[in-house]
Amino acid sequence: MNESVIGIDLGGTNLKGIVMERDGSGRHLTRVPTEAEKGGGRVLENIMGLIDALVVKEGSKEHILGIGIGTPGFVSDDGVVSAAGNLPGWAGTRLYEPIAARFGLRAIAANDVTVMALAEASYGAGRGVRNMVCYALGTGIGGGIVIDHKLYKGTNGMAGELGHIPVETGGIPCNCGQRGCVERYASATGIAAMEREFSEAGPDAGASEFVREVRARPGAVTAKMVYGYVAKGDPVACAVNERVGDLLARAIGMTLNALAPDRVVLGGGVMMAGQVIIDTVNRFLPSYCWPMIREKCDIVAAALGEDAGVLGAGAMAFEECGRRL
Amino acid sequence: MNESVIGIDLGGTNLKGIVMERDGSGRHLTRVPTEAEKGGGRVLENIMGLIDALVVKEGSKEHILGIGIGTPGFVSDDGVVSAAGNLPGWAGTRLYEPIAARFGLRAIAANDVTVMALAEASYGAGRGVRNMVCYALGTGIGGGIVIDHKLYKGTNGMAGELGHIPVETGGIPCNCGQRGCVERYASATGIAAMEREFSEAGPDAGASEFVREVRARPGAVTAKMVYGYVAKGDPVACAVNERVGDLLARAIGMTLNALAPDRVVLGGGVMMAGQVIIDTVNRFLPSYCWPMIREKCDIVAAALGEDAGVLGAGAMAFEECGRRL
Repeated sequence: MNESVIGIDLGGTNLKGIVMERDGSGRHLTRVPTEAEKGGGRVLENIMGLIDALVVKEGSKEHILGIGIGTPGFVSDDGVVSAAGNLPGWAGTRLYEPIAARFGLRAIAANDVTVMALAEASYGAGRGVRNMVCYALGTGIGGGIVIDHKLYKGTNGMAGELGHIPVETGGIPCNCGQRGCVERYASATGIAAMEREFSEAGPDAGASEFVREVRARPGAVTAKMVYGYVAKGDPVACAVNERVGDLLARAIGMTLNALAPDRVVLGGGVMMAGQVIIDTVNRFLPSYCWPMIREKCDIVAAALGEDAGVLGAGAMAFEECGRRL
Repeated sequence: MNESVIGIDLGGTNLKGIVMERDGSGRHLTRVPTEAEKGGGRVLENIMGLIDALVVKEGSKEHILGIGIGTPGFVSDDGVVSAAGNLPGWAGTRLYEPIAARFGLRAIAANDVTVMALAEASYGAGRGVRNMVCYALGTGIGGGIVIDHKLYKGTNGMAGELGHIPVETGGIPCNCGQRGCVERYASATGIAAMEREFSEAGPDAGASEFVREVRARPGAVTAKMVYGYVAKGDPVACAVNERVGDLLARAIGMTLNALAPDRVVLGGGVMMAGQVIIDTVNRFLPSYCWPMIREKCDIVAAALGEDAGVLGAGAMAFEECGRRL
């Protein structure tokens, strides 16, 4: 059988696993509950159970080179998880030894968003690109940096916190302790909050259908709704998109000036809105970075969708587990 | 003879060259005029003449692996210089072919500040450190990024423009087209301008000796003078240092969140002021980056002084010219 790896994507609700070959083709995609509420020990047991199930389906582990895992939080070089706020008891878990002990296979783990960036670089919107920066615009904003086709992890796996680039001096307080982080404006949460703010600010007379809807049920606003109304030309939704594009362009501009990547990939749920976000960012970007750097870098939408996590975990396993234990 | 390289540092006034061994020990340090005002062709001829002189002093080029060159501006992968504003006619110069044709040696060039960063990583304040970010606080602010002990160049050698990280929304216009770039505040030029602004703002009564001096001869203010008066406790100079430290901490914080380096090295003429700048930055930094990332990263002063350019150029030559042409 061809050399393969196991890719695991650890989410707050579900654990996903796959057996994958070097070209990114996968088999036995399996999904089980994470059971995060039962604590870190149970989550690790569930990961081991999932690996076991995949090995059983595969019929052998002779051709499995290693196991890649994408997880919330950071992962130190020796496989200890930290800063995984939404998984109680998960921080502090040692990932590598138990997996090696039980399966005789090397495991390698990293932040889930950085792993998605590697998936895009290996099999998606960044294929063939040497240096790439990825922004995942979801509930929050995560980032990943690929340098020389490899995932750049930084000290203790902490690189790529691009959601916490400040884009407005003295701006909205962020739960990270800073103010004006791009996550507060261009994430799904940030976009919905901005729509509420903009909708409340205008006069009652002549308020659009969407503004009236937002005022009636502010808690129900989503970024998806905002971009639905951007497509219809709603003036307030369009003003929100302009501001989001401006602020996102500031963060992207800073990464361009620092890293001069060949490509920026935008992914995450917010990017369901598609090209309009890229077009808006591209209009603002010239104000926020060196023209020569921008000319050499394009901004594109992520291509892989929700399987990016397992594919990236697998790609990382190929990158780092070339040989058996 | 031990394997050696030639390192060249191209400055606006002088060309410096050295023959260097892998451990960073150099010999035949030579300085000749750049003659930038005579155009790019003459500068290239002067570089070739300097290489020739070094080879003659060495007596042989059998043991020379290659030639590293640090230059203002950017250098593309195929050795073409761009964006070298202070050297008329230098942009567009093709560096590699003429050197290969004349000496049969491979040349490799990069931005002068990024090369200094590599020198610090190889032989100075970043020795042994895997991932490092360097800020050179001079007339302007340049930067360099070392990843996995290697110089990170980015597309067309344009990475590391850390002086153009915006740190103040709608701040001072920069000649790069942005506003609020850190270079406008924490470079020697920026510090002197801030001292003038702060000195003019206060009342006449009770103005300090330094404020009176600045008001009398505003054009004579330098960053060195400001930090001389910081050491004496001058209140306005100290206020300038606070503001410089705050704004520099914002830029450093962003690079920490993005790259999670093991170390940040601060160099350039402004750092003659020494530890007071590092201490001030460290006081502000907690507001501008993730605590876990900051804990793992220290900020130190550059160690190499004015020979960092030739040493870094040599280090790059060892990095990239392992074999002969």
